[in-house]
Amino acid sequence: MKKDGDIFRFASNEFSEKSAARLSNDSFLRALFKEETAYTPIWLMRQAGRYLPEYRALRERVGSFARLYKDPELSCEVALFPLARFPLDAAIVFSDILTIPDAMGLGLSFIENEGPKFEYPLRDERAIRELFVPDPFDRLRYLADAVSTTRHALAGRVPLIGFTGSPYTLACYMIEGGISKDYRFVKTMIYDRPDLMHHILDVVADAALSCLNAQIESGAQVAMIFDSCGGVLSTAAFREFSLPYTRRVVAGLIKEKEGERIPSIIFTKGGGAWLESIADTGCASLGLDWMTDLGEARRRVGGKVSLQGNLDPQALFAAPDRVAVEAVKVIDSYGPDATGLVFNLGHGVSQFTPPEHVAALVEAVHRYTRKPKSTKKTR
Amino acid sequence: MKKDGDIFRFASNEFSEKSAARLSNDSFLRALFKEETAYTPIWLMRQAGRYLPEYRALRERVGSFARLYKDPELSCEVALFPLARFPLDAAIVFSDILTIPDAMGLGLSFIENEGPKFEYPLRDERAIRELFVPDPFDRLRYLADAVSTTRHALAGRVPLIGFTGSPYTLACYMIEGGISKDYRFVKTMIYDRPDLMHHILDVVADAALSCLNAQIESGAQVAMIFDSCGGVLSTAAFREFSLPYTRRVVAGLIKEKEGERIPSIIFTKGGGAWLESIADTGCASLGLDWMTDLGEARRRVGGKVSLQGNLDPQALFAAPDRVAVEAVKVIDSYGPDATGLVFNLGHGVSQFTPPEHVAALVEAVHRYTRKPKSTKKTR
Repeated sequence: MKKDGDIFRFASNEFSEKSAARLSNDSFLRALFKEETAYTPIWLMRQAGRYLPEYRALRERVGSFARLYKDPELSCEVALFPLARFPLDAAIVFSDILTIPDAMGLGLSFIENEGPKFEYPLRDERAIRELFVPDPFDRLRYLADAVSTTRHALAGRVPLIGFTGSPYTLACYMIEGGISKDYRFVKTMIYDRPDLMHHILDVVADAALSCLNAQIESGAQVAMIFDSCGGVLSTAAFREFSLPYTRRVVAGLIKEKEGERIPSIIFTKGGGAWLESIADTGCASLGLDWMTDLGEARRRVGGKVSLQGNLDPQALFAAPDRVAVEAVKVIDSYGPDATGLVFNLGHGVSQFTPPEHVAALVEAVHRYTRKPKSTKKTR
Repeated sequence: MKKDGDIFRFASNEFSEKSAARLSNDSFLRALFKEETAYTPIWLMRQAGRYLPEYRALRERVGSFARLYKDPELSCEVALFPLARFPLDAAIVFSDILTIPDAMGLGLSFIENEGPKFEYPLRDERAIRELFVPDPFDRLRYLADAVSTTRHALAGRVPLIGFTGSPYTLACYMIEGGISKDYRFVKTMIYDRPDLMHHILDVVADAALSCLNAQIESGAQVAMIFDSCGGVLSTAAFREFSLPYTRRVVAGLIKEKEGERIPSIIFTKGGGAWLESIADTGCASLGLDWMTDLGEARRRVGGKVSLQGNLDPQALFAAPDRVAVEAVKVIDSYGPDATGLVFNLGHGVSQFTPPEHVAALVEAVHRYTRKPKSTKKTR
C-alpha cells in the first residue's frame, strides 16, 4: 500500500476549497439533496473495516485500532482502502464514535474480541456533574487532522463524510462502560433519575455538535449522526431522550461552507417507527436499517428527506450473483424513479464479508441504475 | 415451597373440562377477545424465571434447567411460583421453545451463561432433507404432561397459556446452533439457498403446529407463538420466511375445545412495522415489544385484534413508585377505554429484576384500571 500521508501536514485545520480539487463525482451530494444523478450513488457503512485484508494487515502492523484512528495519516490511508478497490461514491473519515467520550476523560480502550471499554463509566452523580465539553481542536485534534488529511488525499474524487454518535448513543456507552446487551444502567437511570440522564445528554449534545462542526471546518462535506442505540428505547423514551438531542445537534451544524451546502444524515438503527419525527429535525437525509421497507419509508418521509439504505448486510454472505439480485430488489422497492436514493447497507459491513461480494454489489447498483442517456450535470 | 405435583398423574393427556374447576378469573381470556373486563389483566413473559429466588433455589437443587421443564411436576411447581407471589391473571406452561428442535434430534443442551446449544445444527443438505415431525405425545410427552399437570394444579384460578416458537425462530436456532449475534448461517441460507430454508420451515411449521395443538389437547387455554427472531429480517424476507409459516400454524390450531374458544397470540419482537400483516393471520391478539407505540398500534390493528404489552422490561429496574408511573403511562398510551388490552412487558422479565418491583407493577395495573363499579360478567 502506498503511504502518501506525509505530504498532508497543515498548520491549520481550516480547510480551504482552493487547496483541493473540485468534486469530480458529486452524485452522492446531489442524491442527498434529491437532485438528479446519472446513477444511484453507493457507499457502505464501515466500508473501511475488518473485512478488508489490507486493513487487517495494517492494523496488525500498527498494533491497535486506536493507533490507526489517532494518526491522521494512517486514518487517511485506511479511509482510502475501499476506494482503491471499489468505485464508491463517498468516503467517510476513519475514526470511532467513542473518541468524544474519550476526550471527555472516560478512558477508552479497545479489547480484542470484546469491543470498547471505558475505564471510568458514568456511575455516580459527582462524575456526571463534572462532565465537560472537550475542545475539538485540542483533545480531538487528531480527528480534525484526519479529516483534513483525508479530504486533501481524496483530491475531489468523492465527498468526505464526517460523523458523530448521537448524544443518546454516546451516553449509552458512557454509562454502560462498553457494549451492553440489556442497557441495565442506562435504563435504570432513565426510569429512576431522568434528571441525571438529561444532564449527561445536555453536555454530550454540545460535545457532539462541536466535534462535528470541527470536522466540517476541517473539510468534511457531509455530516452524519449515528443513533445506533436509539432503537432500544420505547417510543416515549425515544422522544424524550434521543430525538431532542439529535435535533439540537442538527440545528447547530454548519449549514454551508465556501458556497457549498453541508447535508446531514441521521441513521437510527431500529428507528423505523419514528421516521416522520426524525425527518422533522431538519436533516437532509435518513439512513434506514434493513428492517424498514424503503418504499414505505419513501411514502412517509420522501417528500422531506432523501433516503439512504438499506440492504441487509448479511445478504453479502450470499454468492455474488445473488448479491446483485438482492441489490436490485432494494432499488426496486424504492420505486421506479430512484431520485433521492443513496444506496447503502442497513448497517455496517460485517467483518466476514468477502470483498469480492462488495465489488459485485457496487457494480450491480451502478449498472442497474445508470440511465441510458447521461443526464449528469456539473454542479 | 409446597410440592403438590404428585397427585396430578394422568393416563391420558386428553384434558377433560369436568376434571378441573371452571375459571374463577377469566379476565385474561375476555380481554384477548376484546370483551369488557373489571380491570386490565396482566401477566409477564418469563414470569416464572431467574429473577425469583425460589426458582433459583429449585434449579440449584435440581441441577439444570432441562431437568425442571422435563419433569411435569417440577415444571408445574415453577409455573405456579409467580402466582403465589403476585395476583397475575394468567399462567404459562414452564418449558422452552427449543424442546421442538430437541425432539427433532438436534441434541439440545444448556450451557451456563452461554444459553442453548445444539449438538447437531443444520448445516448440510442431507441433515435438512432428513428432518421429521416428532410425535408430540411421544418425544414431547413431558411437555404435554407439564401442561395437564399445571392446568389441574391451577384448578381454574387463571387460564393457562401453551406456546411454541414461530417456525422461523425455531429454524434460526436450529441453523445457528444457538443464540446468534449476526445470524450468519441463517442469512447465508436465506439469500443463497432459499429452497433449503423453505424446506426447513415447512417441516418445522408442522412440528410447531402439532406441538401447540397437543398442548391445547392437554389443557392449554391460550396458544402463544413467539417470533423472537423475525425482527432481524428485512420486510421482504419477513414476508417470505416468517409470516407465511406463522400463518400456517395459526390456521391449523384447534379453535375451540369443550365449548371454549382458544385464542392465539403472536409476539414478534421487532415486528412493529408489520402489525397489519400479522393481525391478518387470524390470531386473536398481538404481543407488542416496548419500542412499538401502543396507541398507534391500536389505531392500526385494534379493530381486528386485542393487544398485549408493552412496558420496557428494563423499567422494572426503577424504584417501585417509578415503576407504577411507567405502567400508567403505558395504559394511558393505549387510550381512555382499555378494552382489548392485556398488560405485559415488551419482552421477558430480566433476571436482574427485584421481585418487589414486579409486585408494584401488578398492583399498579390492577389499581389504575379497576372500574369504579364492577362490570365484570361471568362467562
